[in-house]
Amino acid sequence: MSETVQIGVGKTGRRGYGFSDIAVVPDRRTRDAGDADVSWRIDAYDFTLPFIGAPMDSAASPETVIALGRAGGLGVLDLEGLWTRYEDPGDAYRRIREATDDQAGRVLQEVYAEPVKAELITARLAEIRAAGVTVAGALSPQRTQQFYQTVLDAGVDLFVIRGTTVSAEHVSSTAEPLNLKKFIYELDVPVIVGGAGTYTTALHLMRTGAAGVLAGFGGGATSSSLRTLGLRTPMATAVADVAGARRDYLDESGGRYVHVIADGSLGHAGDIPKAFACGADAVMLGTALARANEAPGGGYHWGAEARHQRLPRGRRVPVGSVGPLEQVLFGPAHDATGTTNLVGALQKSMATTGYTDLKEFQKVAVTVSHYEA
Amino acid sequence: MSETVQIGVGKTGRRGYGFSDIAVVPDRRTRDAGDADVSWRIDAYDFTLPFIGAPMDSAASPETVIALGRAGGLGVLDLEGLWTRYEDPGDAYRRIREATDDQAGRVLQEVYAEPVKAELITARLAEIRAAGVTVAGALSPQRTQQFYQTVLDAGVDLFVIRGTTVSAEHVSSTAEPLNLKKFIYELDVPVIVGGAGTYTTALHLMRTGAAGVLAGFGGGATSSSLRTLGLRTPMATAVADVAGARRDYLDESGGRYVHVIADGSLGHAGDIPKAFACGADAVMLGTALARANEAPGGGYHWGAEARHQRLPRGRRVPVGSVGPLEQVLFGPAHDATGTTNLVGALQKSMATTGYTDLKEFQKVAVTVSHYEA
Amino acid sequence: MSETVQIGVGKTGRRGYGFSDIAVVPDRRTRDAGDADVSWRIDAYDFTLPFIGAPMDSAASPETVIALGRAGGLGVLDLEGLWTRYEDPGDAYRRIREATDDQAGRVLQEVYAEPVKAELITARLAEIRAAGVTVAGALSPQRTQQFYQTVLDAGVDLFVIRGTTVSAEHVSSTAEPLNLKKFIYELDVPVIVGGAGTYTTALHLMRTGAAGVLAGFGGGATSSSLRTLGLRTPMATAVADVAGARRDYLDESGGRYVHVIADGSLGHAGDIPKAFACGADAVMLGTALARANEAPGGGYHWGAEARHQRLPRGRRVPVGSVGPLEQVLFGPAHDATGTTNLVGALQKSMATTGYTDLKEFQKVAVTVSHYEA
Amino acid sequence: MSETVQIGVGKTGRRGYGFSDIAVVPDRRTRDAGDADVSWRIDAYDFTLPFIGAPMDSAASPETVIALGRAGGLGVLDLEGLWTRYEDPGDAYRRIREATDDQAGRVLQEVYAEPVKAELITARLAEIRAAGVTVAGALSPQRTQQFYQTVLDAGVDLFVIRGTTVSAEHVSSTAEPLNLKKFIYELDVPVIVGGAGTYTTALHLMRTGAAGVLAGFGGGATSSSLRTLGLRTPMATAVADVAGARRDYLDESGGRYVHVIADGSLGHAGDIPKAFACGADAVMLGTALARANEAPGGGYHWGAEARHQRLPRGRRVPVGSVGPLEQVLFGPAHDATGTTNLVGALQKSMATTGYTDLKEFQKVAVTVSHYEA
Repeated sequence: MSETVQIGVGKTGRRGYGFSDIAVVPDRRTRDAGDADVSWRIDAYDFTLPFIGAPMDSAASPETVIALGRAGGLGVLDLEGLWTRYEDPGDAYRRIREATDDQAGRVLQEVYAEPVKAELITARLAEIRAAGVTVAGALSPQRTQQFYQTVLDAGVDLFVIRGTTVSAEHVSSTAEPLNLKKFIYELDVPVIVGGAGTYTTALHLMRTGAAGVLAGFGGGATSSSLRTLGLRTPMATAVADVAGARRDYLDESGGRYVHVIADGSLGHAGDIPKAFACGADAVMLGTALARANEAPGGGYHWGAEARHQRLPRGRRVPVGSVGPLEQVLFGPAHDATGTTNLVGALQKSMATTGYTDLKEFQKVAVTVSHYEA
Repeated sequence: MSETVQIGVGKTGRRGYGFSDIAVVPDRRTRDAGDADVSWRIDAYDFTLPFIGAPMDSAASPETVIALGRAGGLGVLDLEGLWTRYEDPGDAYRRIREATDDQAGRVLQEVYAEPVKAELITARLAEIRAAGVTVAGALSPQRTQQFYQTVLDAGVDLFVIRGTTVSAEHVSSTAEPLNLKKFIYELDVPVIVGGAGTYTTALHLMRTGAAGVLAGFGGGATSSSLRTLGLRTPMATAVADVAGARRDYLDESGGRYVHVIADGSLGHAGDIPKAFACGADAVMLGTALARANEAPGGGYHWGAEARHQRLPRGRRVPVGSVGPLEQVLFGPAHDATGTTNLVGALQKSMATTGYTDLKEFQKVAVTVSHYEA
Repeated sequence: MSETVQIGVGKTGRRGYGFSDIAVVPDRRTRDAGDADVSWRIDAYDFTLPFIGAPMDSAASPETVIALGRAGGLGVLDLEGLWTRYEDPGDAYRRIREATDDQAGRVLQEVYAEPVKAELITARLAEIRAAGVTVAGALSPQRTQQFYQTVLDAGVDLFVIRGTTVSAEHVSSTAEPLNLKKFIYELDVPVIVGGAGTYTTALHLMRTGAAGVLAGFGGGATSSSLRTLGLRTPMATAVADVAGARRDYLDESGGRYVHVIADGSLGHAGDIPKAFACGADAVMLGTALARANEAPGGGYHWGAEARHQRLPRGRRVPVGSVGPLEQVLFGPAHDATGTTNLVGALQKSMATTGYTDLKEFQKVAVTVSHYEA
Repeated sequence: MSETVQIGVGKTGRRGYGFSDIAVVPDRRTRDAGDADVSWRIDAYDFTLPFIGAPMDSAASPETVIALGRAGGLGVLDLEGLWTRYEDPGDAYRRIREATDDQAGRVLQEVYAEPVKAELITARLAEIRAAGVTVAGALSPQRTQQFYQTVLDAGVDLFVIRGTTVSAEHVSSTAEPLNLKKFIYELDVPVIVGGAGTYTTALHLMRTGAAGVLAGFGGGATSSSLRTLGLRTPMATAVADVAGARRDYLDESGGRYVHVIADGSLGHAGDIPKAFACGADAVMLGTALARANEAPGGGYHWGAEARHQRLPRGRRVPVGSVGPLEQVLFGPAHDATGTTNLVGALQKSMATTGYTDLKEFQKVAVTVSHYEA
């Protein structure tokens, strides 16, 4: 466990670190970047890239989900987003894009006031399946009971339950909450669930039978949970804690390996190797994919927290468009901003520190300092 | 106690933490926000909200004190402020509001040069009492002897003695200082007293018989005590220390529970859960309420330190107006700036971390990091 | 001694703290500000204020030296500055004041290329003596041998030897350096010498027989020694270290009390109590006095480091003019910028923390944090 | 070794420090600046200055390499840069200089797409040798096998192998990598190799027989390896670690002293003493020399990382032109920006802390703090 800090007579806290506090350090042999293997496998599904697209409307349309799948990653559609609320979400996207900064919060609330439609869930998933890529869709814990049967009937390969904070035990005085363990047990498809920010939360989620746990809160760039709720777990610590839970659960379960997927604060190429260095098996990318020319957000990025009708905890942020998805993933990069050639950068980072596969790369040395990027 | 720091050969200091250094961490079950109970009780008085309005002229008029009381909180009028110096303070408010930044300090001094009038104290308190809400008024330690009889005669439910720093033992070579212990003992009404920044100060104040202790210095946004006097206690440490004193005094006194009220650095919704996490029973809000449309400061905020005639230690700051008091407290919020729906945000923070009552929520896990809000 | 930091395999460093890292904490009784006694005595000289004017041309003319003396402090003239290079330095001041930022360095070099004249040293000191205040003049270690006889013949009460760094043992291959111990022993007048940034340097300077040691490097606001030479000692640590040396030397010498004078990073009222909290007996003020209307710099401030002909390590900085010297020292202040009423602020800081004399105030509690002024 | 930091349950890191975290501290006698000897000797080559010019096209042309050599330092030409790609690189330099910030990355890629020509390597080295200075040229590890014979045939006194990260053991699945140990053993000329960021990497490089090791990553100002690859070693820690390896290798090898050359984050005069304080024997300067009027970059600075065709990790930065190389090295300085009189500043820093030679100066005391330059 991390360093305990005495805040005052009556309270202790725990020291945490963000990705911006750490860097990866070359400390042994070097290798050719081309020799670095970045493939990833979860359950029966193989991917040539360890990149999962965040189910955020700004980054993920059926089209970009398919494109990411074809490129070797895993695209995930938000099944409670614009694509399942509107037959044609074009006008909704346009309103969000054209809103001034002052209006943006209210426009998001208006646009997302439209109900989610089961038949659109079915249609969108069918469209993705027809393209021949691995099909994944995401629901929030709150909506999972309402729509999961629709999702299953439509057919998904991987089911993602994603919220800012997801626990294995939700307690409610007014509704029968989702029993995650029972739900996952009865489900035929592997489930990825999170966010989890600490060892304990992650361990409990692993015990529900999840195939993967999202480490972190997601939506780093777009989230204001610190300002509105006082909540934050620094990402490097969150990923390392969840990876620690993976190791202990592996022992406890007699060998079940639950994948750790870093989710949040991964906006630039240089953040991604840090996530693996802290123990991630794969990374979920939001901002980085929202910058692709094909991203439906059109240069803007926002998360599910921003659409709450009474208490939004996120905001629309401008991220710009830097090039086609192909270039974002595989380059060529024409500058050093860390927004294109994410795959090449990860390979180069591994090679420079002497690693050829991602699992080994989790051991790379890390330094903690006051970095000025 | 906190970490001791060796500053140099001849001096040690103690490490302290502000609210901006910490965050609340979800670490167990989650709950429905609606199940979070934020009610608070001090002495015989029940409140549905744990929010006390700071007795600052920018935030508190008789009208807003009544409105906050009706909304479920406790409004406190500054009994040495504009409302007891002027029959109609409208012109004084206008002068402060219209002053340029350069003039503001001098205008505050001029406006507050007008003497406090006992009959206006009586009238203002009567106005509040007539509205049927819990009546509370604040005096500085310096003025308490002069005006407390007037206040008692007018009738208050709770008496607040608030200064930047209040000690249980004030020593003076020229005047007989207020004997706080004797004063509180003889008084019929419960007293809330502070600010106290450390364990020892708080413990001594608790021993005077106070019902509540204000932890911190108050007026965070408007105070310049660090720049002018070299004084500051980081708020997270201050609240935790005072909460530590509460626990020890509870034992020492054989069961008297003195309430800890965080006062200062609570400008955004996300700061409030941090105060409870450090051990607060309630929070005193200045900036947050000064942003209400009804706030008499008209988008500006200033504290009592700013009106000193020879050594002001505070300043007028622009805070803007974000909506009606109702919306500041209960929403809906239309952005993620943490300025509206303070109650909903506190409930959501408790629910996300698995708590349903504020006393339990004092145990929530806290992380210490270099946060970038 | 302070915390040792392992920088890397081959090097350790020592953790240091600046005034901006610390704050004074109220932790016991409070007092009336008027009861705080800020008088100071060194050797046979009594002062009602513990403020020494820095011998910097921007802040000190014969006129302001006299005015500071009459106000109760100690003014010190730079005996190698404009007043001893020019019969009438008015034109030199004008050129410095009117230079653009780009030209300022070169203009300083040109203006200070004029030689120092012994007869002007004599005349300036006579002018000060005639005013009836305590007479003090400063030379650099480099010039002390050349001019000290002139200074002694002119008559001074206190002799100040001030450089960025002064050691008890200067070694030179080309000239016979000043033997500080012999020099001070033979001198009739008490000597204040510095800057000293560490315990060892200070202890050695105390052993030379100095009456006072300047702790720090001086000229905080105007110095660029970090950028040009890589040199810095954080001031809180420097003062605490030198105060530690005072204590040990007191024992070693069988009772000789050498005064510790903090010199540098004292630009605002709130910095001054911190210096005393770290163990200072008095403070040397540059920026704070350069802001007086009477200051000859006319709103600009520069130190001796800025006039080096080949390697300037300081620069001219704008500090503005905030009011007459009387107001800078005694108020009234009309804002909370910490630039006026320095005496009232020091008294209030002492009173708020329960102290009535400066020697006791050296024990005041200190907190270390990430402060945002 | 440095402090171990627990990042989370599953990961530890190591605390590191940059030059901006430290400062040199005067702690004993002082000396005359003129008595400080800054000469340096590696293998059979003597230099009156411990400055090596970074082999970067912005700072090093054949002309400036010669000029630096004549001034007493060691100039190093990038043998894969513009001067060996173009017979007349004037047009290439002009294109880079005139590119907008947005275009600069792409222009660098285009300009550097031109192949390196062996005959130009020969010609450039001949030109330098003809001037009578010590001849040194740099290749990247990737190009060393291809061109080293050309270089040796042309004749060099010192051979520099410089990359962002160079290890003693490069592994490749597609090509037979350079066996550094065998290569250096067979070579007639002394080799300087790096960058190395850690103790282990440096120790392994020392065991290859290198005469000097570059500590750090080089190109501090122009590098974006943190943003693109997540890689960084804070320089103070890197130099101290490599110096630690030098000490241990000295013992292990029975007395072979490998020179430690700090490379990176040395943009201002004040950074240079810090490098020696951490254990450097010499420093490699990029930005500092790119500011000379004669520098071919014409006020811009860029490194080899910026020219990668698919994954640039560096950028063109404006550094301005501050004066002739002579003035950059020896002054006079007319301001305190730390860009001119680098030699005088180093001597003054040594003298102020009591040192007369660089090897002893490695022992100077260092303080760690939150410095604000």
